[in-house]
Amino acid sequence: MQLMTNPNERASAEDLELLDRYWRAANYLSVGQIYLLDNPLLKEPLKPEHIKPRLLGHWGTTPGLNFIYAHLNRAICIYDLNAIYVCGPGHGGPGMVANTYLEGTYAEVYPDITRDADGLRKLFRQFSFPGGIPSHAAPETPGSIHEGGELGYALVHAYGAAFDNPDLVVACVIGDGEAETGPLAASWHSNKFLSPVHDGAVLPILHLNGYKIANPTILGRMTDEEIRDLFRGYGHEPLFVEGDDPHVMHRLMADALDVALSSIRSIQQGARNQTTSFHRPRWPVIVLRSPKGWTGPKEIDGLKVEGFWRAHQVPVTNPRGNPDHLKLLEQWMRSYGPEKLFDANGGLVPELQRLAPTGNRRMGANPHANGGLLKHELKLPDFRSYAVDFPSPGGTVAEATRELGRFLRDVVKLNADARNFRIMGPDETSSNRLDAVFEATDRIWMEGIEPYDVHLARDGRVMEVLSEHLCQGWLEGYLLTGRHGFFSCYEAFIHIVDSMFNQHAKWLKVSRALPWRRPIASLNYLLTSHVWRQDHNGFSHQDPGFIDLVTNKKADIVRVYLPPDANTLLWVADHCLRTYDRINVIVAGKQPFPQWLSMREAITHCEAGIGIWTWAGTEAPNAEPDVVMACAGDVPTLETLAAVDLLRKALPDLKIRVVNVVDLMTLQPKEQHPHGLSDRDFDSLFTRDKPVIFAYHGYPYLIHRLTYSRTNHGGMHVRGYAEEGTTTTPFDMVVLNQLDRFHLAIEAIERVPGLGIAAAHVKQKLRDALIEHSRYVREHGEDMPQIRDWIWPNSAGGTTPRQTGD
Amino acid sequence: MQLMTNPNERASAEDLELLDRYWRAANYLSVGQIYLLDNPLLKEPLKPEHIKPRLLGHWGTTPGLNFIYAHLNRAICIYDLNAIYVCGPGHGGPGMVANTYLEGTYAEVYPDITRDADGLRKLFRQFSFPGGIPSHAAPETPGSIHEGGELGYALVHAYGAAFDNPDLVVACVIGDGEAETGPLAASWHSNKFLSPVHDGAVLPILHLNGYKIANPTILGRMTDEEIRDLFRGYGHEPLFVEGDDPHVMHRLMADALDVALSSIRSIQQGARNQTTSFHRPRWPVIVLRSPKGWTGPKEIDGLKVEGFWRAHQVPVTNPRGNPDHLKLLEQWMRSYGPEKLFDANGGLVPELQRLAPTGNRRMGANPHANGGLLKHELKLPDFRSYAVDFPSPGGTVAEATRELGRFLRDVVKLNADARNFRIMGPDETSSNRLDAVFEATDRIWMEGIEPYDVHLARDGRVMEVLSEHLCQGWLEGYLLTGRHGFFSCYEAFIHIVDSMFNQHAKWLKVSRALPWRRPIASLNYLLTSHVWRQDHNGFSHQDPGFIDLVTNKKADIVRVYLPPDANTLLWVADHCLRTYDRINVIVAGKQPFPQWLSMREAITHCEAGIGIWTWAGTEAPNAEPDVVMACAGDVPTLETLAAVDLLRKALPDLKIRVVNVVDLMTLQPKEQHPHGLSDRDFDSLFTRDKPVIFAYHGYPYLIHRLTYSRTNHGGMHVRGYAEEGTTTTPFDMVVLNQLDRFHLAIEAIERVPGLGIAAAHVKQKLRDALIEHSRYVREHGEDMPQIRDWIWPNSAGGTTPRQTGD
Repeated sequence: MQLMTNPNERASAEDLELLDRYWRAANYLSVGQIYLLDNPLLKEPLKPEHIKPRLLGHWGTTPGLNFIYAHLNRAICIYDLNAIYVCGPGHGGPGMVANTYLEGTYAEVYPDITRDADGLRKLFRQFSFPGGIPSHAAPETPGSIHEGGELGYALVHAYGAAFDNPDLVVACVIGDGEAETGPLAASWHSNKFLSPVHDGAVLPILHLNGYKIANPTILGRMTDEEIRDLFRGYGHEPLFVEGDDPHVMHRLMADALDVALSSIRSIQQGARNQTTSFHRPRWPVIVLRSPKGWTGPKEIDGLKVEGFWRAHQVPVTNPRGNPDHLKLLEQWMRSYGPEKLFDANGGLVPELQRLAPTGNRRMGANPHANGGLLKHELKLPDFRSYAVDFPSPGGTVAEATRELGRFLRDVVKLNADARNFRIMGPDETSSNRLDAVFEATDRIWMEGIEPYDVHLARDGRVMEVLSEHLCQGWLEGYLLTGRHGFFSCYEAFIHIVDSMFNQHAKWLKVSRALPWRRPIASLNYLLTSHVWRQDHNGFSHQDPGFIDLVTNKKADIVRVYLPPDANTLLWVADHCLRTYDRINVIVAGKQPFPQWLSMREAITHCEAGIGIWTWAGTEAPNAEPDVVMACAGDVPTLETLAAVDLLRKALPDLKIRVVNVVDLMTLQPKEQHPHGLSDRDFDSLFTRDKPVIFAYHGYPYLIHRLTYSRTNHGGMHVRGYAEEGTTTTPFDMVVLNQLDRFHLAIEAIERVPGLGIAAAHVKQKLRDALIEHSRYVREHGEDMPQIRDWIWPNSAGGTTPRQTGD
Repeated sequence: MQLMTNPNERASAEDLELLDRYWRAANYLSVGQIYLLDNPLLKEPLKPEHIKPRLLGHWGTTPGLNFIYAHLNRAICIYDLNAIYVCGPGHGGPGMVANTYLEGTYAEVYPDITRDADGLRKLFRQFSFPGGIPSHAAPETPGSIHEGGELGYALVHAYGAAFDNPDLVVACVIGDGEAETGPLAASWHSNKFLSPVHDGAVLPILHLNGYKIANPTILGRMTDEEIRDLFRGYGHEPLFVEGDDPHVMHRLMADALDVALSSIRSIQQGARNQTTSFHRPRWPVIVLRSPKGWTGPKEIDGLKVEGFWRAHQVPVTNPRGNPDHLKLLEQWMRSYGPEKLFDANGGLVPELQRLAPTGNRRMGANPHANGGLLKHELKLPDFRSYAVDFPSPGGTVAEATRELGRFLRDVVKLNADARNFRIMGPDETSSNRLDAVFEATDRIWMEGIEPYDVHLARDGRVMEVLSEHLCQGWLEGYLLTGRHGFFSCYEAFIHIVDSMFNQHAKWLKVSRALPWRRPIASLNYLLTSHVWRQDHNGFSHQDPGFIDLVTNKKADIVRVYLPPDANTLLWVADHCLRTYDRINVIVAGKQPFPQWLSMREAITHCEAGIGIWTWAGTEAPNAEPDVVMACAGDVPTLETLAAVDLLRKALPDLKIRVVNVVDLMTLQPKEQHPHGLSDRDFDSLFTRDKPVIFAYHGYPYLIHRLTYSRTNHGGMHVRGYAEEGTTTTPFDMVVLNQLDRFHLAIEAIERVPGLGIAAAHVKQKLRDALIEHSRYVREHGEDMPQIRDWIWPNSAGGTTPRQTGD
């Protein structure tokens, strides 16, 4: 790609001179935010009392961010671009705030921060100040969909925003620090999933200012030749903008942006008019090399600052206490010529005001960066029509996620025209048995497609890549710009995005407190191929701990569902797709499994979130049971019911209550979570003093943690994953972790006092069954037939069920 | 780089013919492991009863892995290479097992698996069989330092192994699935940290077989031109080996390996002889394109299998039940000509046995892949000599991590000659105040170094890159090959490697049960820049949840330490560096902080892990206190002591006990953790029934979880991080989360019954102080001087301490 621009569009010297002044205004405001409490226009000489007592913020990246913002403004005005700005270096918060202030958005969102001297003073003061705004680009920053505190996700967020927004240009600044992270490195291949026909464009701007906190950067020290090779390898064509002389740099940047945007236009027009047969386009990328802390002090106290890592945070460290520093700061700020940028009242001078786009074209005001404004409700089919029907509990076997696939297929169909729903997965949509969606759509794929390929297409609602980071990041970007989605993942490997989950939860928590941020669709996870059915892949694939991470977050933000069968899964999925500003975690298996509840029962059960399965227990009406057998999760439910079956036959007088938990948050006190049960309701389910044998899907401690303040906490005996596993049989997995029917039944017998000699005999039989199991699987390599085929007794009468373990 | 080889070394046609047979033997054994219970040499026609009832395993990647293994064997023999094999596609377990069996290592490690027909039968049967071995390359696999279940870390592990092993060649196979992950994508830049002088070589072999579970791969569908650009951009020179005709491919692969190894030799010799001025070398990479499921069935049931994703797992799905499948399987296995590979007794024929290297040159037997064999104890200075001295508790302020830096500096010095200790950090060694290490060493850096750069060098013990994934992966590889290390990280961002921590913990758990695997040094984390001192970076930088993840793992594997000051930190660091086969997490702040314990007291306290600070409390000897104020973590300790100070003055009769926890695992029952206190000891510290106000560093639930079964659990009132935070002052951070001295003191007053009207008055004063604080920080932007300067009263008499909050 050559640096050729249309002469009609090329920026004039006057344009660039004005643009330079606009940039200086943004730089001035950025420095002011970091340093000043007062005297915002420098109408008097700086005094110590004008300086904040604690100096917090990051200067280094900011002038580069401001430079890019100003040039994007120019391009928006010329080409009437619909553009947003994803600021990878979130540290550059002062720059994002300065620019949205200059363009007028800030005062509209925060009317207190007026466009005059008083507003400037408040703008400066509030930055990194208690009760004010954070030091980063954050939810509080208009125009931002990206925090940038934890580095790595700028580019995936940008792609997520661009999908299904054919008119949008997402300018994405990636710092050379962030470029060293794994998620960012993988993100470059996102262009293999971007349709030039149906999606918008991402314009990555790799900002190489050369340094991190205390080190040079890898990419910053690479030669242009290596950078060019690297980006061509990524499928991009790099445009270099390099230097430190602002005048030269403005020309280079303006021209590079013109070329990049013209290249984007021509790629999109070619593809949309089908003027050429399809080939994956080579999208432009701008490589901007500019000094860290550009235009700031060159040296301080004899040490190199501009163009070095010492410019990273607050370069002039002690202007309040050191008169030389104070003078240096004043010189620095005056070097921008504030008197030529702002009028006497503190308003931006009119010739500069005219440089900013207007209305929703302003990047701070673009509704795509406040996605809730654009969100439409998802059209959902009636989930009840996908119900699995069966003669009696346990009377039918179904694969829960396969049933869910049919529902999702129709969600895809109903929203096909709206193009606002995507399904993400790391190469696991079929493996997770959601195949039915391929009746309605394909996997999006921009590389070559072979005749024998299956469900790959240039247009499709399913996105598969072997990177949980990309799936998560794309989906976050997609949701933050007002759309909907669903992420299915192997349970163990969702830990790969623990930190991304954390950051998204934090974003939601802050956003919910900002009235101007409209609610976005929830982030919905389906965790399947879960710990209990990774007997084939072994220990590395067995980890149910994501739930523990999730429950550390603010109660309002998170929900965890453990539907025990297909009908409950359908209810849960339908419910989650209707919620907003949440993170919903659904854990459900994909293997053939007995079904327990009719759709009618499933609805009642799920609406309560927890309940007694009277049909499964042996308790008498109006009397407390001897023991409560509680369960949460599909495999624990199966094992609990099997244990009850064993006990029912062996000790018919034992009164057992079965409690099943779908919505894990019901276990928490009402005061701690909106879904939490009152103590009274909790006690009525779990009794105040009877033993509770709780079979839980994940690490058992979580149940103790959620219930520690309940009356009967001392009676809770929880079993779950004990970090024991390998490649073995499905039932052996539960046995290794002592979550199986035999261990559960044995514990019930042990915990109920006074069961006498008959019970001791039963216990011995159960122990023998465990030994027999162990011998059998080690000899035959599969579970005993009576374990595999065990089905809950037909409670409506009818067929005789197979018996368990004896 | 041209495909030129030394004619003396070039493989002859006869060599390659034998090599092909060796490869076929490995393929045969791989298929046998997936399918057969018996009849391992096909001495009779296959019958259904010879087939395993459950077929678990992955064929697709295996023939490629075997191909590479066989060629590496040839190179090892010719060049007397010291090489190990990192198998990224861990699914290819059957191949790794087959090859270590063929070379004779397997039977040495597992004497039951003999090198005859009976051994073969057992070898086949045990694979993916209950009580047998996992389906993946795993700790059980000789020669493996890498599990490969969770994809992404092969290349970082390989680099970790190569560092400081100048004679080692680490061949690292990266599947094209794994190549899509973030951590792997970032790993390519590891070559910027590899010294051709002091380190060994990594030879990456990118194995493009084109498919994942159900999709083509991104890199598999890229053109050679794009791949070449990409790898040149990464600083590598690619050598392509492409095709499906084994005979052609053997020639190409042998030549490519010759070229690659000759290139490595010449790079290393040039650098070691200093024949040229330093420039970062362009290391070779082999790009191997071969069909997925190569040499397996081309089609099954009319569907394409070889060269497609259907070959991923078990291609012939039902040989036990479907006679056509059984026939197909038998044809497939016989196509390798087992009768020409094994003699009548099942031994590998002598001409093939001769192809394998011998002794420790066998990749399965190379001691670098069982690092404990090579591990030397770290030389440690006497940590007591770094003690911070002070007149009385709180009488001195120190930065704990800065003191630790001095200790680590001397660890570096003492082990400089051994070259077996490295410090990793994501650009944070200085930021985390460990600067003193730069008195002893530098940061290793292979790109350009400018005159004004600081502590960058071609040789250095500190590794900094803005990727927690790389830091963690390099360190794991370094430890697994018998060395030592230390990883300092911002607390919030350690979540980025949650899943890597999980996998390493799983590796350790399994390894510890294998007597032949020798113990390796522990993985030591220092989490600093922690949640309570991220008031400047804001909400995204505030997360103490890693501890929760850690405590889900097997008790024997993990330790969590929260030293409250510098002397305790020194004890803990010294202790952790002496341990093995563990993961130690140390959480300690870097900010100036009052010091509480002399070194003598610190030793006593840390050895117990928990204890009563009698000097800090107000309890009478031989009497129970009214309230226990417990604390874990530096900031909670400070706030607790300040709260006690407030209470001591306001309510002199209140009997307060102060308990400080350094070793978090002491809170767990003895039965659950080896460091756990007995119930009796726990009760003697926390009483059986007095209120306990517990100020904890992280999410408060964890303390409930650890103590739920203790007598006084009902009396535990835990405060910690409540997910409230922003950019504000340090003290405001604790106030926002109600962990501050005022809230703690108020809760103590509320929980102790019968304190009367005076107490109510005190409570009101404390509440007023909170309001005053809030007003003050929002006005002044910094904490009140009396908060900032608060110092614990000099218990030895002497100076009057400043007072708190009133």
